[in-house]
Amino acid sequence: MISVALVGFGYWGPNLFRVFSSHLSFDVKTVVDLDENKLKLVKKRHPNVKFSQDLKDVIDDKDIDAVVIATPVNSHYSIALKALNAGKHVLVEKPLCSNSEQVEELVAVAKQKNLILMVDHPFLFTGAMQKIKEIIAKNDLGTLFSYDSTRVSLGLFREDANVLWDLAPHDFSIINYLFNEKPLHIEASGFAHVNPELPDITSLTLYFASHKTAHIYLSWMSPVKIRRIAIGGDKKMLIWDDLDRDQKIRVYDSGITFQPSESREIIIPDYRIGDIHSPKISNQEALYAVATHFEQVIKGKEKSIMDGNEGLKVLRMLEQAQSSLDESLLKSRKLREQYKKEVEYV
Amino acid sequence: MISVALVGFGYWGPNLFRVFSSHLSFDVKTVVDLDENKLKLVKKRHPNVKFSQDLKDVIDDKDIDAVVIATPVNSHYSIALKALNAGKHVLVEKPLCSNSEQVEELVAVAKQKNLILMVDHPFLFTGAMQKIKEIIAKNDLGTLFSYDSTRVSLGLFREDANVLWDLAPHDFSIINYLFNEKPLHIEASGFAHVNPELPDITSLTLYFASHKTAHIYLSWMSPVKIRRIAIGGDKKMLIWDDLDRDQKIRVYDSGITFQPSESREIIIPDYRIGDIHSPKISNQEALYAVATHFEQVIKGKEKSIMDGNEGLKVLRMLEQAQSSLDESLLKSRKLREQYKKEVEYV
Amino acid sequence: MISVALVGFGYWGPNLFRVFSSHLSFDVKTVVDLDENKLKLVKKRHPNVKFSQDLKDVIDDKDIDAVVIATPVNSHYSIALKALNAGKHVLVEKPLCSNSEQVEELVAVAKQKNLILMVDHPFLFTGAMQKIKEIIAKNDLGTLFSYDSTRVSLGLFREDANVLWDLAPHDFSIINYLFNEKPLHIEASGFAHVNPELPDITSLTLYFASHKTAHIYLSWMSPVKIRRIAIGGDKKMLIWDDLDRDQKIRVYDSGITFQPSESREIIIPDYRIGDIHSPKISNQEALYAVATHFEQVIKGKEKSIMDGNEGLKVLRMLEQAQSSLDESLLKSRKLREQYKKEVEYV
Amino acid sequence: MISVALVGFGYWGPNLFRVFSSHLSFDVKTVVDLDENKLKLVKKRHPNVKFSQDLKDVIDDKDIDAVVIATPVNSHYSIALKALNAGKHVLVEKPLCSNSEQVEELVAVAKQKNLILMVDHPFLFTGAMQKIKEIIAKNDLGTLFSYDSTRVSLGLFREDANVLWDLAPHDFSIINYLFNEKPLHIEASGFAHVNPELPDITSLTLYFASHKTAHIYLSWMSPVKIRRIAIGGDKKMLIWDDLDRDQKIRVYDSGITFQPSESREIIIPDYRIGDIHSPKISNQEALYAVATHFEQVIKGKEKSIMDGNEGLKVLRMLEQAQSSLDESLLKSRKLREQYKKEVEYV
Repeated sequence: MISVALVGFGYWGPNLFRVFSSHLSFDVKTVVDLDENKLKLVKKRHPNVKFSQDLKDVIDDKDIDAVVIATPVNSHYSIALKALNAGKHVLVEKPLCSNSEQVEELVAVAKQKNLILMVDHPFLFTGAMQKIKEIIAKNDLGTLFSYDSTRVSLGLFREDANVLWDLAPHDFSIINYLFNEKPLHIEASGFAHVNPELPDITSLTLYFASHKTAHIYLSWMSPVKIRRIAIGGDKKMLIWDDLDRDQKIRVYDSGITFQPSESREIIIPDYRIGDIHSPKISNQEALYAVATHFEQVIKGKEKSIMDGNEGLKVLRMLEQAQSSLDESLLKSRKLREQYKKEVEYV
Repeated sequence: MISVALVGFGYWGPNLFRVFSSHLSFDVKTVVDLDENKLKLVKKRHPNVKFSQDLKDVIDDKDIDAVVIATPVNSHYSIALKALNAGKHVLVEKPLCSNSEQVEELVAVAKQKNLILMVDHPFLFTGAMQKIKEIIAKNDLGTLFSYDSTRVSLGLFREDANVLWDLAPHDFSIINYLFNEKPLHIEASGFAHVNPELPDITSLTLYFASHKTAHIYLSWMSPVKIRRIAIGGDKKMLIWDDLDRDQKIRVYDSGITFQPSESREIIIPDYRIGDIHSPKISNQEALYAVATHFEQVIKGKEKSIMDGNEGLKVLRMLEQAQSSLDESLLKSRKLREQYKKEVEYV
Repeated sequence: MISVALVGFGYWGPNLFRVFSSHLSFDVKTVVDLDENKLKLVKKRHPNVKFSQDLKDVIDDKDIDAVVIATPVNSHYSIALKALNAGKHVLVEKPLCSNSEQVEELVAVAKQKNLILMVDHPFLFTGAMQKIKEIIAKNDLGTLFSYDSTRVSLGLFREDANVLWDLAPHDFSIINYLFNEKPLHIEASGFAHVNPELPDITSLTLYFASHKTAHIYLSWMSPVKIRRIAIGGDKKMLIWDDLDRDQKIRVYDSGITFQPSESREIIIPDYRIGDIHSPKISNQEALYAVATHFEQVIKGKEKSIMDGNEGLKVLRMLEQAQSSLDESLLKSRKLREQYKKEVEYV
Repeated sequence: MISVALVGFGYWGPNLFRVFSSHLSFDVKTVVDLDENKLKLVKKRHPNVKFSQDLKDVIDDKDIDAVVIATPVNSHYSIALKALNAGKHVLVEKPLCSNSEQVEELVAVAKQKNLILMVDHPFLFTGAMQKIKEIIAKNDLGTLFSYDSTRVSLGLFREDANVLWDLAPHDFSIINYLFNEKPLHIEASGFAHVNPELPDITSLTLYFASHKTAHIYLSWMSPVKIRRIAIGGDKKMLIWDDLDRDQKIRVYDSGITFQPSESREIIIPDYRIGDIHSPKISNQEALYAVATHFEQVIKGKEKSIMDGNEGLKVLRMLEQAQSSLDESLLKSRKLREQYKKEVEYV
């Protein structure tokens, strides 16, 4: 049994608590949150768990092997650093830190102390994602050329991240996992409707050296929830609709091929519309699989697919996208001010 | 009866022929296409219609009141100009011309000769669009803030237009119709997977002075067809799914309101998830309504909602978007070349 | 070219006219309907077709090879008989006649005169049905055990048939086509909400000697339209949803197997939930395929899959079902009357 | 706090345990199951709960106020009787008992001892059902005339009930709740594909004195899960699709009205296809609401909507349906045997 502490019992913490509590390889010893009220209800029902408002109860406890961190993003770095320095393995909610320098330091400390540093990207552990990885590994889709993700819903507004930092880590970690290629460039545009400081809609375009491309649309302002990713290959195409009860994955035996033609002016693409196949996928809870992976990596039985270095890649992509987003927002603000002046002048 | 000629009998021409033939106010006198084979089958069944390969049979025919043009885009200008100069009203497939200068000239000629110049934007005449216009006019949605369109399918690749020029006119004409506001700025990115000269995926972001924003995703490379537009207002939100048989429009009594808070650091948005309402919409064919509108405008009974000036606005938006798209494509090409050199150097 | 006449231009007639007019092997020479108004519009556009109110213009015309009948059911028999006696092939809308004696006579006359007598069961000619037949022929589903059909919508109320006679011919012809087995027994129950003489909802249960079973639910009183058939086999199961745009057929690699168990009291069924596969299906119009089949059968190139004998089987099933339905309606009426008396007595 | 014991920890028991454990008004003191293995895992995590294999630990415990019974159907009666005789309130899984005599006795005992006897019909407590009740109470649908339910999925085969006794209690309790009228007559047909003794598909037709009618189709043999109820009224119609994430209820402003006509032979029904409205529904867990209702009824604050008398009504309907089903199965068996003999004879 790995003795684990959970730090942060806000939005995601209760899920982590439920999963680690019911996992046969973990024993949740301590739960920490600054807000006593959040702990009240759960406290009564779990007399064997220690609930505390003080992080020291985790850091100083020699019996705790690992720390799971689900606090606001800006506190991830300091808590993770303290935990690593105290010799504990660490699993952190995404995004791993507020900037890549912090991640670099955590990675270095973890390496030096021979500890596991992992970031929780649960989508990588869904049955759907595992099946997609398998399909791509068998080369069923052929050469991949496009990734198109729509990840929208109404809220939930976070206090500690804009829509880019909240939702893009999902797509960035999936892209890295499937494409295994760093984007050359990320273009972002976006809007802040509710809070001027916090963009709530963002559109991203990623370019890759291999001619792959990705488009990601993220929004907290959609009346319906969509979690849909389309992956294009030159043999087949695939759609993952995470909210479809019966057919989360559809593989389309459809494609477009460029037919060489004598006349340069005429394009003769070959459209192929064929069968649709929905493979059966495992319905194990993703978060439970994350916990199992954490356990296996700690025990040295698996190589982590979402370790600190993976978290670092995602963070650098976030920074690249944020920089482009800032530019785009600045430009649009200037254009609005200029337009206002012109209108006033008239 | 308005005597009409149809020029161009390729992809869209047969639809125009069917609709104008069955319309009680029009009489299709002549059909012109360069390719004799295309006319063969239809010829036999319509002994009262003249089929020709020569445009002169239309231009020189004094009995023809109006010309409907459905040829490749680069021939629109010269055919329309000839028809207007011969004193005929003109209805042109979108996009109206290859550039805005051409449109300006056509608009000027039509005005001078007191003729009707119209561009066919059929989506404006769907029952759904008319219902949406009505909903917005009643202020049911409140102040509009966002437009998000996904317009994707597998092909059809056109020889005479890239995906932007093929599909964006739909969204641009709808945005102009609903927002009645010129965008300050359009950002475009895109990719050309099949033919390097012809982008087949494009993502657009439009900024407006009024803080409205629009995102449009266009693709010829999707295994499934999607025709879906979401419109956000501060009172309600609306989704138009053109492929939904039973509920083309859904109005969501849902929204997000920014709650003022004493502490500047805490955002308390108010999420409201309420009823969903699908109004009954007329199922008259849009193209038939376009023909009726053309008739009413010719007879001076209606003011055109898609005249030359509307066509000009759409064309300027296309040019603005194309210029941003060129920049983005150029940038990504340079980055790829640079990457290639670095790799080779190593 | 087969010269054909169309008798009846009401609800379905215009579809038959459109299809036979555009079919390369048929020439529609004459259209007959008692109501002159129905013919007015179409008359003007088809100067080469003769429109008449008198059946004699068809029967006496030696140049007409075949007659297509789309009049109310109770007139099918006499029109078909006249046409056959005049030496013409006949295609009749379903249901073929008002009773099986009439069908027997038509079959006998057609046989004696060596003419083709066919009944229009268009569902047999959909791309979906052809694909299902192919799947079953390859034994992909294993031994079939169940058929479950839901065929409901709002109206259209017919004057010449109740919901059983209007909709059940579709399912009966499909069952005969796929099962190739006569039901031992048909149980029917139903209700007449709008017109007391004309049941508008019916539920049918069919028993077969081979342990196959069928359930059919037909309604004119449903706010939504459903055209959905589930076919169960001991290897796989299949669902045909005729209104699904992208996946009309889904084959489920799912099933239930009875596991023999030592204890007689414990059942251990083996549930298998596997992949879902949607084969590509041809999207040729079913009615066009019916016309082609009619042509091929007339020319002796194909054996009819919906000839008079098939029509006779369907009619006998209708009569069997109607008799059970009458019993059920009578019983429920008596129970209502009895209840009324009891209540009044009290 | 009401001290409660749970008897039966098989398929449904763990859900009841989770809900009553987390309910603020209940304290789960004891859990009983004959199979020690089922209790092992949960035992470790709930040190404050007593786990036992002996019902006496519940019956003899004076501190236990109420007993929740989730054992196989044939044991419901004796456990409930013991609990009532020991002065405890009782909540029993549906169906309440194996026959109506048992229920009558339990009802009598509960009444005499002034104890609460309730049967768990969770669908009555879904947000959807509560909303439908509200819609009908406001007379939005007008006079109700039909109920059509499809309740199918793959398995789960029960050892203690056929598909009728497993699934029909849901529909029967809903019909009683909404129609508040006893059916005059129930017709049932069905098939037993997997186990000859246990029908796995059943079709039911219910007749009512008020001309209402109901059709229910139940199956354990469908590759897809459907939980769909259509309710027809003469003003509006309603569909409850329990598996629809976003629109569990759709109210159709559609209907059919019989237009009186001069000619008796012509029916002119008026089809009205109008708006579709999906009211927001509460997403509180139904089982939690059942627990709260149990609490409120025990405390005398609410009148039970699913007390012993309601359970008795449902049981009598089950017996009526079973008797018709037996007849139908017997008839079909005889027809098969007769057919077999005829075939052998030939």
